[in-house]
Amino acid sequence: MKNLLVAQSGGPTAAINASLAGVISKAKEKKEIDKIYGALNGIEGIFNERILELSNLDLKLLKQTPSAYLGSCRKKLPDIAKDEQTYQDIFSYFAKHNIGYFIYIGGNDSMDTVCKLSDYATEHHLDVKIIGVPKTIDNDLANTDHTPGFGSAAKYVATTVSEITEDSLVYDLKSVTIVEIMGRHAGWLTAAAALARNEHRAAPQLIYLPEVDFSKEQFIKDVKDQFQRGVNHIIIAVSEGIHDENGTLICEGEASAADSFGHAMLSGAGKVLENLVKKEIGCKARSVELNVCQRCAGHLLSETDIAEAFLIGEMGVEAAISGKTGEMMVFTRVSDAPYTIRVESADIHGSANVEKRVPKEWIINGNDITSDLITYLRPLISGQTPILFRQDGLPEYLYR
Amino acid sequence: MKNLLVAQSGGPTAAINASLAGVISKAKEKKEIDKIYGALNGIEGIFNERILELSNLDLKLLKQTPSAYLGSCRKKLPDIAKDEQTYQDIFSYFAKHNIGYFIYIGGNDSMDTVCKLSDYATEHHLDVKIIGVPKTIDNDLANTDHTPGFGSAAKYVATTVSEITEDSLVYDLKSVTIVEIMGRHAGWLTAAAALARNEHRAAPQLIYLPEVDFSKEQFIKDVKDQFQRGVNHIIIAVSEGIHDENGTLICEGEASAADSFGHAMLSGAGKVLENLVKKEIGCKARSVELNVCQRCAGHLLSETDIAEAFLIGEMGVEAAISGKTGEMMVFTRVSDAPYTIRVESADIHGSANVEKRVPKEWIINGNDITSDLITYLRPLISGQTPILFRQDGLPEYLYR
Repeated sequence: MKNLLVAQSGGPTAAINASLAGVISKAKEKKEIDKIYGALNGIEGIFNERILELSNLDLKLLKQTPSAYLGSCRKKLPDIAKDEQTYQDIFSYFAKHNIGYFIYIGGNDSMDTVCKLSDYATEHHLDVKIIGVPKTIDNDLANTDHTPGFGSAAKYVATTVSEITEDSLVYDLKSVTIVEIMGRHAGWLTAAAALARNEHRAAPQLIYLPEVDFSKEQFIKDVKDQFQRGVNHIIIAVSEGIHDENGTLICEGEASAADSFGHAMLSGAGKVLENLVKKEIGCKARSVELNVCQRCAGHLLSETDIAEAFLIGEMGVEAAISGKTGEMMVFTRVSDAPYTIRVESADIHGSANVEKRVPKEWIINGNDITSDLITYLRPLISGQTPILFRQDGLPEYLYR
Repeated sequence: MKNLLVAQSGGPTAAINASLAGVISKAKEKKEIDKIYGALNGIEGIFNERILELSNLDLKLLKQTPSAYLGSCRKKLPDIAKDEQTYQDIFSYFAKHNIGYFIYIGGNDSMDTVCKLSDYATEHHLDVKIIGVPKTIDNDLANTDHTPGFGSAAKYVATTVSEITEDSLVYDLKSVTIVEIMGRHAGWLTAAAALARNEHRAAPQLIYLPEVDFSKEQFIKDVKDQFQRGVNHIIIAVSEGIHDENGTLICEGEASAADSFGHAMLSGAGKVLENLVKKEIGCKARSVELNVCQRCAGHLLSETDIAEAFLIGEMGVEAAISGKTGEMMVFTRVSDAPYTIRVESADIHGSANVEKRVPKEWIINGNDITSDLITYLRPLISGQTPILFRQDGLPEYLYR
């Protein structure tokens, strides 16, 4: 019997704890597994020796708790060739604590960690099975149909855009409302704003993804065109990462620093466009940045997303127990209607450090998306997880 | 038999349609009332003669629909002495359509309209009963314990602050997160952020209301003090309307225009403080502006608020039928525990154009609130209205 270690990494989502609950639930069933440990703040918890025993957590509550119960990190491991000591430290920690299985729940950068650790283990014949369980609201991981966490974020975005639309309609005057949505390089979540459309509402009328170059001139033309067609309350979904043909971010004036992965810290594409509309068109304009709320809204969960996040956590443990290592768990879509997926695993070398972006053929005129993309997105926000509330009127979450 | 006319005015809330549903529901029961009309875009709908017959609306759906079903306006009526024609126009409209009852659902500015119309009717012996039904997320109306719409906004604010707190805790580094909340002059909604606190979480650690002068120097001292006490992830709730001792808004650099009531249009107190923290302290800092989402989040409703909003709409009709006019419906709190209220009515002259602000004795040190204020707030977010969802995964709303 060996022990299992699990950790979470990257940006929070509303579903990453459901995957953790799935890992714990399945690990408890397995006779091959003795203790179930969680490292705090991702891989950092190994260096700091900060670990928890997880067997007694309330998994039902953990499943509906947003953000990362074990904390997260943004640490990227060095190249093995350049700094072997780091890897020796990690694997002596594994040996000392009899860790036979390491499950890392995270996004693109976390899969890079899974890749390096499993490469090192293979090279040195170390018997630790290392499996990546994906999560990211950005939905930008390769080889998987979609990522856990995306569906709940998409449901939040679509719901909020539909509510902002109702809010914008109350006054009898022309207005432009710009909703800025997360996703630096991938427009999946921005595209999910289109799910707010129904037989009564065409909003958002315009959608701008980071996959295509953004032109301020064309944007103003697009807005004027909507007014000319008789739309008086225009709702616009924009990605935080829209950029011009030279790759310069529209919000660049407001970009400030860079995080430890060298990603520029963005803010303000919506605000820039709000000011542009005021200046060029002169109508009422407002921008709403959904900000971190779109990734941590535990009170509004996609049932499909949470069920799948739990399942893929369970399947990660199954994969490790069956002897797999250096793999990322993935969803393969079997059909759209009825919506059916299979959980499989894929070689981590093809999954890490590859960003899956919205295909050009799913983008129309640089300002809208196709019905094929809506067909892809729709099932992911389906169903709502019934939330437990505390006596004090707030959702009940599991606190560490 | 006379007809009843109802309209909505001022900023949207998640509960104003519940009051409309209450008005319609009660009016349908009354033998004194024939037709039930709704004017579109508040008092503007009378001038434009844009009215709807409302008897056949799905009231259950209307009750959970955010924003204003009938649309809204920000029109302020002129002084009677200065422009009698406006009043003659309105009352000939009433006469032409046999309107015996006019219910105006709105905030402070709307109660000014109720006041002027009822004064005119009394002066000219016109038999139209005019009743105000309050609504505002700002909770700043006089003579009523609280206002419909506030409880749902408060529940949204508290829930979102609790989720943003979980989001902020994931990284093992010092951070400051500033949440900017609506309320230009009244800090009730900002104070509701304190409802996010529980036995596990002390966030928000700092709360700044517009009722007290704000000092940037003291603010930086407050933040440093929290770090010194060992709080690594500081959550701060600030009102959009915080201002210095001269009354200059903290966001003033970013204030742009004024609306038709002469209110400055605000944005950016949170962003200003975020930059201040980065500059003066140098730690990770983020600001989140809850923006219109806090007033239109139909997917997260306080059951208490929605039930009371419906009830006060019903009682408005009862008051009009019983012969009252020139009154605003109000809540009187009978007790905190068990929470009990009475619905009464109060002379509109004491209610219109008075802003009820958070009493100084409920504010501590300029950066926190008392437990008395929490006791006042807590029952208002109690219970959650079960929301109907559409097949497509979004909340089901009633569309006009």
